[in-house]
Parts: sequence; C-alpha cells; structure tokens
Amino acid sequence: MKQTVAIIGAGETGAGWAARFRVMGWNVRLFDPDDMAQGLVGAVLQQARRGLPGLSDVALPEMGDMVFCQTISEAVDGAIWIQECLPERLELKRKVLQKIQEHCDGAAVIASASGTFTLNELQGCATRPEQIISTHALAPVYLLPLVELAVNDANPPEVKARAKEVLQGIGMAAVEQQGEERVSVALQSALQTEADRLVAEGMASPSDISDALRYGLGLRWAASGQEAPQDAVLVAILRALKAQGAGAGAVLNRFDAAQGEPALDIKHPLSTVTRTVPLDWTDYNGHMNEARYLQAFGDATDRFMEIIGCDADYIASGGSYFTVETHIRHLDEVHAGARIRVETQCLLGAGKKMQLFHRMYEGDRLLATGEHMLIHVSLETRRASVPATHIIARLGEIATAHEALDQPDGAGCAVGKTG
Amino acid sequence: MKQTVAIIGAGETGAGWAARFRVMGWNVRLFDPDDMAQGLVGAVLQQARRGLPGLSDVALPEMGDMVFCQTISEAVDGAIWIQECLPERLELKRKVLQKIQEHCDGAAVIASASGTFTLNELQGCATRPEQIISTHALAPVYLLPLVELAVNDANPPEVKARAKEVLQGIGMAAVEQQGEERVSVALQSALQTEADRLVAEGMASPSDISDALRYGLGLRWAASGQEAPQDAVLVAILRALKAQGAGAGAVLNRFDAAQGEPALDIKHPLSTVTRTVPLDWTDYNGHMNEARYLQAFGDATDRFMEIIGCDADYIASGGSYFTVETHIRHLDEVHAGARIRVETQCLLGAGKKMQLFHRMYEGDRLLATGEHMLIHVSLETRRASVPATHIIARLGEIATAHEALDQPDGAGCAVGKTG
Repeated sequence: MKQTVAIIGAGETGAGWAARFRVMGWNVRLFDPDDMAQGLVGAVLQQARRGLPGLSDVALPEMGDMVFCQTISEAVDGAIWIQECLPERLELKRKVLQKIQEHCDGAAVIASASGTFTLNELQGCATRPEQIISTHALAPVYLLPLVELAVNDANPPEVKARAKEVLQGIGMAAVEQQGEERVSVALQSALQTEADRLVAEGMASPSDISDALRYGLGLRWAASGQEAPQDAVLVAILRALKAQGAGAGAVLNRFDAAQGEPALDIKHPLSTVTRTVPLDWTDYNGHMNEARYLQAFGDATDRFMEIIGCDADYIASGGSYFTVETHIRHLDEVHAGARIRVETQCLLGAGKKMQLFHRMYEGDRLLATGEHMLIHVSLETRRASVPATHIIARLGEIATAHEALDQPDGAGCAVGKTG
Repeated sequence: MKQTVAIIGAGETGAGWAARFRVMGWNVRLFDPDDMAQGLVGAVLQQARRGLPGLSDVALPEMGDMVFCQTISEAVDGAIWIQECLPERLELKRKVLQKIQEHCDGAAVIASASGTFTLNELQGCATRPEQIISTHALAPVYLLPLVELAVNDANPPEVKARAKEVLQGIGMAAVEQQGEERVSVALQSALQTEADRLVAEGMASPSDISDALRYGLGLRWAASGQEAPQDAVLVAILRALKAQGAGAGAVLNRFDAAQGEPALDIKHPLSTVTRTVPLDWTDYNGHMNEARYLQAFGDATDRFMEIIGCDADYIASGGSYFTVETHIRHLDEVHAGARIRVETQCLLGAGKKMQLFHRMYEGDRLLATGEHMLIHVSLETRRASVPATHIIARLGEIATAHEALDQPDGAGCAVGKTG
C-alpha cells in the first residue's frame, strides 16, 4: 500500500521533492495556484526518472501516481507527509501552514523546505506547532542526498523519528541541525561572499572561482568533507568526470589528447590500447574486475574503429559498429597500477561484418583474450547497413594483411570448450 | 631525452610534486636536509604510481629516475624546472632562492609552491627575479589537477608560456592568478572560518560540516564549480562514490541494503539483478555500453555466489570464485532509465566448477545472454581449490533443480556460430 505525500508549492524545489517522492514509490498530490507548475513538474519528473533510479543497484518500488489538486484541502487529504515548498515569504508560509493544519491529519508530518526562516519562526502562528519541522535540501533535490532536518522542543520524539525514517526511505541523508542555522546555507553563503570579494577586487574572474572548486577544492570536499580524501576515492571521482568530459575530467581528456598515437604497422596485430589499470578497476577479489577487461577490449575496438575511419565525425554522420557477440578468456590476474596493452588482430572484415581478436598483456604475460563480432549499423534505423566506401577499403586492407597471421589460440571456441 | 626537475624541500608538498613529475616521465633531483625526507618521498611516490597513471586512458612516458642530492648546487645542476617547496618562512625561502640562483641555469624556471607569500615577496631579494614564479597546488599534488600560477611584470612572456607548457605536460590545469591572492586559499580559508564559527556557536559538529560538503555542496562544486551541475555528471560522481563506499556513496549503499531481496524459487532461473540503467552507462552509440552488460552480468554472478553461501564473510575467510571465460550475445539495445533484470540458470555446479547462464530482459524483451565459467579459488594461493562443504551442498541443490530446465538458446556456442 503506497504512502501519500502532499507537495504545497511546485516551483523548482517543490518539483524536485515531488519527483523524488514519486520515483521512490510514493503517491504525490500537488497544489500550486500557478498554471505553469504542471509543466515544470513534468520536466523535473522526467529528469528524475532518468537519473535517480540508476543510483541504486537494486530495483526501486513501482512509481506512485501523481495528482494536481485544485485546493490545499484536497492535496493534503490522506497525506502522511506534507512538504511545504512556497516562495521564501514568512507571512505567506505562515498563512498556508495554518490552512494546511485546518485540513490535514493531526498525525501527518508537515515539513517546510525553507532555507531562510528558522523552525521557530515557521511554527510561530501554527495551531499545532508540534507537527511542523524543517527539511532543507539542495537542488537537484531528486539526486543530492543532503537534507538538513530541524526539529525543536515543540516536536515530540516520534515526529523526529518518523521524519528520519521517511527521509532515509526516499534515499536521503538526514543531518540534524544543532541550532537554528542551516550549515549548507551558511557555508555556501560564506564561500559566495568570498568569491564576490575576489571578483570585486580583481583577484579572480568567476571562471577562476569555478576552476578552483572543480579542479581542486570541490573534489576534496566531495570525496571526504573536511577529512583527508583517500586516493582511490579521488581517482574514482576524477575518472567519473573524465568519462563525462566534465570539470576536472576535461583537463584529463585534454592531457590524453595531447599524447601521441603509436605508429601503425598493419602487417602485425595493431596496438590499440596501452594504459595503466586504474585504482577503481579492482574488486573484492583484489584484482581487475571482469567487466573492466571488457571495458579495455571495448576501448581497443573503439581505437580499431578509429583506425579504419569509423571515428567521431563518421559516427556523428550516422554510421557505427555495434558489438553483437563477445567471447572472453580470463587467463591471468592483473592489479591496479599495472601497465597493460591490447593488440588487435582482424579475423574478418567484409561487408557489414567485422570480427576482432584482442590479446591483453602485462609485459609478456598474456592476461586475457577477447573475440568480438561487430555489425555496421545505421544509427538512424538502428539496423545493419553497408559501411562507407573508405571504411570498407581500409578495413579490407587490414583484414587482408592479417590473413597472413596465425589463427589465434582460443578463437572460435565456446565456453568450456577452449581446449 | 628526459627533462630534469629539481625539488628543493621534500615535505608532503615537495614529495607530491616530485612524484607527479617523475611519474610523468621527468628525471627528478631532490634536496632536503632532513633525513626523514627520503622515506616520505618513497611512500608518496608509491601512492602516485598506483593512482596517477590510471587517470589516463593512454600510456604515460616511462618513469624518470630520481636522485637525492647532498647539496642545492648538485640538485639544480641540469634542471630546467626548479620547484621550491620549503616550509612557509619567507626569510628561509628568500635565502634558498638566492642559493638556487647562484647555481642554476639562467633559463630554468624557478617555481615556488608557497600558499602564503605573494610573488613580489618571493622575488624580493633575488638576483634574477625574472625567472621566479609561483605555482600553488593542493594535496595530493600527484592527483588533483589544480595549480594556481602567478607571474608578474618581472617575468618575460616566454617564462609564462614555458610554465603553462610544463604544467599542462604533467597533467595539471594552470589557472593564472589575476592578482596577488590565491583563489583556492582564500575560498578554503573563508569556508574554514565559517565552519569554525558554526562549531563554536553550537550550530554544527565538525562531522555536520563534512556531511554538508560531501552529501551536497562538494558534489555540486566538483561537478561544475559555481555553475549548475548536469544530472549525468552528478550521477557519475555519485556512482563512483558508491562503488568506493565513500562520502555520499555510503548513503546510497545503506539505502540499497535496506531494500529487501526477492524470494527465491530454485525450480526456476533465479532473479539475480533488478535495476535501472544508470545515466553513466550509455556511450557514443546512444545505448548501454557493451562493458556495462558484463558489469550487470558480473553483479548477477555476485548475487548467485551470495545465494550459494559465497558471501562477503566467506570471501574474507579466503575462498572465492574467479570467472575464467565469458560469452555474451548482445541481442537488443537498452537505454538509460530502463529497468532491466537478469535471470540466472545454473548449467553446471560440481567440484571446483560453476557454469552460469544469465538472461537480461527489459520487460519481456531479451536484451542479452551471458554464459560464464567460474572456478573456485583460494585467495591465498590464487589457485583452484575445493569450495567449503556448505557451498558444494547449496550449489549442488540448485544445479540439480536446474537440470530439469531446458538448455538455453545460445549456450555452448562460439562467436559467429550461434545459429
């Protein structure tokens, strides 16, 4: 049986709360007198549905339903949590909190999203201050776990316990306020004041401020707050940013792009990957995780595609290769910090088909092989299609050259039948 | 031909610079009168070798050599970059900078790591102020890309150009100071002052400050500085933290752990994964990347291992399964936000061997199959070993039950021969 939340005020904050509750399996009832609210909530909900469930490695409950209500009384009917997300005007908030209390269940929790007013101020004119608490979160509310929870002597212990349970149940970390100030607001504001001073005094441009945060300070704070960050955590964050080409990851990508590519000799298997095993590629068995072998083989395939002319420009023009089948033999272990390389032999390259055989080495030690069948596709129809002429020509040239090479050990075998 | 850097002062900062330069292919000459310096540099270098090269998706140059020198003159001999990393005492720095200039090449760049003194102050008593600049970085210097570069009218343009080139060449982002203040120091200090005030006034504990940063503000700043962060970037950072069990990732892991496991019926293929495709699992082809299929199948294998009793406790006691072979058929595409599930059929479970067949679905649509051979190993010897009795029993029970199921389509096939 799904629980019901009422969201009163559906601007960016209210829409974020509505989306988080709904994606986490709650039924949502919204009230906002503004006709634009419905469109905003729809857009935010769509983003939340794409982003939030994937944060979990398990399934979330089925999404709840959502109703836009004409009145506050209709919205709060049956709600056990009422999230007030009105504009930051104290008189408005107090008036609406009174209205909410006229109609809501006396056992419901009424949580104000205010980042400005203290809980005492919000409870000020209420009929039942004991059911009013404060929950301040950061945008996007549907992704960031931080919620600053304020309760005070007016709230009985069960209200606080219930609040923590609900907030944890929707995936948030409730940090209880020790006093009347919201820590995130105070810290953000102190940093903003200093940033404004630096810009006003000609010490920095706004982008210099951003650079100091995203290339340095923010990485440390995201990793560990004020404590010393662990290398593996910083590496994991940096590599996540690199894959997105964002923040410090853009710096890492520019560095990689400035390194030269090795010369090609198509009479031999092609050198397609040379890299070091990153700290975040190892798992509970103390070695490189099996999925990272395929990631490295995937990178080798990408590089081979580039070599035959299937590069970013070609892909943007609507053609690409999709892997349809993969066979990996894990022959030996490898650890973080080791330098690995992949050599790629083309077993078949004709028409729409391309069959590649990757060998991964650390020094002379063969770690794994990967055999891959790929099909050229149109990215518009998502179906098999004939590659462009220059790709057919270059792939054919390499395939012909590689016909002279020995058939690799382990090619053409099924699982358990490698010999 | 490798370039040479001299590091003068090998505390934490100097050791970090030494490690970054050396791992990036420079020869390093160190001077520090403290006998402890050598041990510290060795430890920092070891960390840098594990962490830094893996940030790149290409190979770094071969590491340079490293020499501890008895005198400053010996250290700076042949160096084209001299990194001064002494304790923050202006008179000491000035004295040593003079000493450096007595012996170094007039064309070398001398960079002070000071976070305290202005470039004017550092150049104050120098014979050749034109070759002295300031480069302030954050710890760990060998991982974080931020370096705040100060040059002034005393430095000719070629010194600034050379400094940027060298810093970019060792993977850093040089942010040029507009004035005499270092932005990162000013921002860090403003935040620290506010944090101290909040703690002193009883508004927050130190851990509340950390929570506000690592569950909220730090994530935004790491993603995009002061701009609005993109969902995909936040998701990528959050998932990186989740894999490490650090910061906000610990919140996500606690949430997952609180969700119930589905009931098991061993007469059918077992439900081993139910999840949503995360935003950071898609690639340039607009669909889930091939390596993520194996990641999901790997998670399914992990869950199957748990089911048969090969859980975290058992692995900690020294036994585990290693995947030795994998065959994946990619049958259909899937996109971010889609809910997928994996059903696992045990094809063989006897002695040291375990053969699993995973089917991945979105709804009724079969997306991929994965066939995997695993071998039970001793984590001490890293060799095949007999599983514990309770694992043999439970695996045997499931294998026997699954013998009644049809052999899956596509099992036992080689690449290109699936039929």
